[in-house]
Amino acid sequence: MALTHIDDPADPRLDPFRDLKHSDQSGKGLVIAEGPLIVRRLLESRYPVRAIVGFAAKIDTFLAEEGVPELVADLPIYVVSRELLAEVAGFDMHRGLLAAADRAEPATVAEALEGAKTIAILEGVGDHENIGSIFRNAAGMEVDAILFGAACADPLYRRSVRVSMGHVLRLPFAYLDGSPTTWHHSLKPLVDDGWRLISLTPNTETLLKGALADNPEKVAFLVGSEGPGLTERAMRATQVRAKIPMAEGTDSLNLATAAAIAFYERQRAN
Amino acid sequence: MALTHIDDPADPRLDPFRDLKHSDQSGKGLVIAEGPLIVRRLLESRYPVRAIVGFAAKIDTFLAEEGVPELVADLPIYVVSRELLAEVAGFDMHRGLLAAADRAEPATVAEALEGAKTIAILEGVGDHENIGSIFRNAAGMEVDAILFGAACADPLYRRSVRVSMGHVLRLPFAYLDGSPTTWHHSLKPLVDDGWRLISLTPNTETLLKGALADNPEKVAFLVGSEGPGLTERAMRATQVRAKIPMAEGTDSLNLATAAAIAFYERQRAN
Repeated sequence: MALTHIDDPADPRLDPFRDLKHSDQSGKGLVIAEGPLIVRRLLESRYPVRAIVGFAAKIDTFLAEEGVPELVADLPIYVVSRELLAEVAGFDMHRGLLAAADRAEPATVAEALEGAKTIAILEGVGDHENIGSIFRNAAGMEVDAILFGAACADPLYRRSVRVSMGHVLRLPFAYLDGSPTTWHHSLKPLVDDGWRLISLTPNTETLLKGALADNPEKVAFLVGSEGPGLTERAMRATQVRAKIPMAEGTDSLNLATAAAIAFYERQRAN
Repeated sequence: MALTHIDDPADPRLDPFRDLKHSDQSGKGLVIAEGPLIVRRLLESRYPVRAIVGFAAKIDTFLAEEGVPELVADLPIYVVSRELLAEVAGFDMHRGLLAAADRAEPATVAEALEGAKTIAILEGVGDHENIGSIFRNAAGMEVDAILFGAACADPLYRRSVRVSMGHVLRLPFAYLDGSPTTWHHSLKPLVDDGWRLISLTPNTETLLKGALADNPEKVAFLVGSEGPGLTERAMRATQVRAKIPMAEGTDSLNLATAAAIAFYERQRAN
């Protein structure tokens, strides 16, 4: 570990942390972690960390955590002032500790599914916070992997990483093949492989608890976008449509909340 | 209804909509609704609407909705350009339709509890989005009222209203008496009145489903702040502590998600 004080906001070693507010660095192939909990999870992940930057006091506290000195042994650590970091990142980063890592190849679908019993499959989930919430809820309730259908936002975007509490860095995820109009064909092999695919939708009479009552061995919950929900073609590729009962005259739940309830119902039987 | 075009950003009739990004108007005793769905819910609520403002096309569409002309019959409607509204509000308001109402006295606890079978009681929930989510989830899953213990954020703040999908304007809520160190005494009358008070906390062995297995007639879920959770003194004033099972090594759920799961479990039995 090499602690280096940096006073010049133009120092190129700070480039991974530049203009985070507007451009995000994820477009440049980086993963950014904010705050000690998530920085630690990034250090423990398969993503190769390039550098850590932070305020002196925050770095001191972080280095005093059990196991952290080993995790950062080979890494540059840049000590900066709050003002300098605000200038570089483009906003006041009160957490005071950041890490940047390079991306790694996503898992293959087969790798993500290895040993999995419960997964979620997302379609058209374009909101980074919803993606982050789904990973947080999945990790908390024993969901084993997330598969992305078409038109989803990037799970490694800074805001997704933060809202997930770093669980996007831990929980396996993979991308199903295909365009928005063809990706549903990628669901067929899952059905053939014994997965019960359950579309979460308010437009059915089947209750979620009914769809899970026989405690199937392998379950995949399909979750669609906030407004229109799952496409008809995706739902047709699943065996079951199931709803969470809603009070009359109310809208559907937020999709991450609906997914959380599905994960809960699944775990409830075990 | 009186449609008036306004071209001058300094026009005092636009004052209720001024500088929404930074100051919010809720501090001035107003309630702000954004977008047609929530504007409509504000018009249908007990809050006296002062005025509506929007882009010409958005107002046209809104006025064509069934029932809207009657709801706005006595109200001034200001037609403005997108640029002007952005200048007045302080940010680009792509929804293009806003309404401002005066506040009304909150309900008393007795009024909020009238006929109620399921409620939530919040302590230290300081985040406006979490408050909004809780109202949205409560409305969706047949929760009858929300009671505020100490140190919660304002449910009528613009962001809470928006995240709630306007349900803070519909679902009864009331404030329990007392300071952060005394408000738990306000829980005693609820216990005496036959409510089962259930503290949601990860630090117990009792499962949520167990705490509800006998399907009690009246249930109140206590939900604490995102970090520290409920205070020990609040939990001591409840009869039961219950948890949502969590995977090992994961953090607790977001508090609005935990509340949603409790609401789901309660509704599940009915």
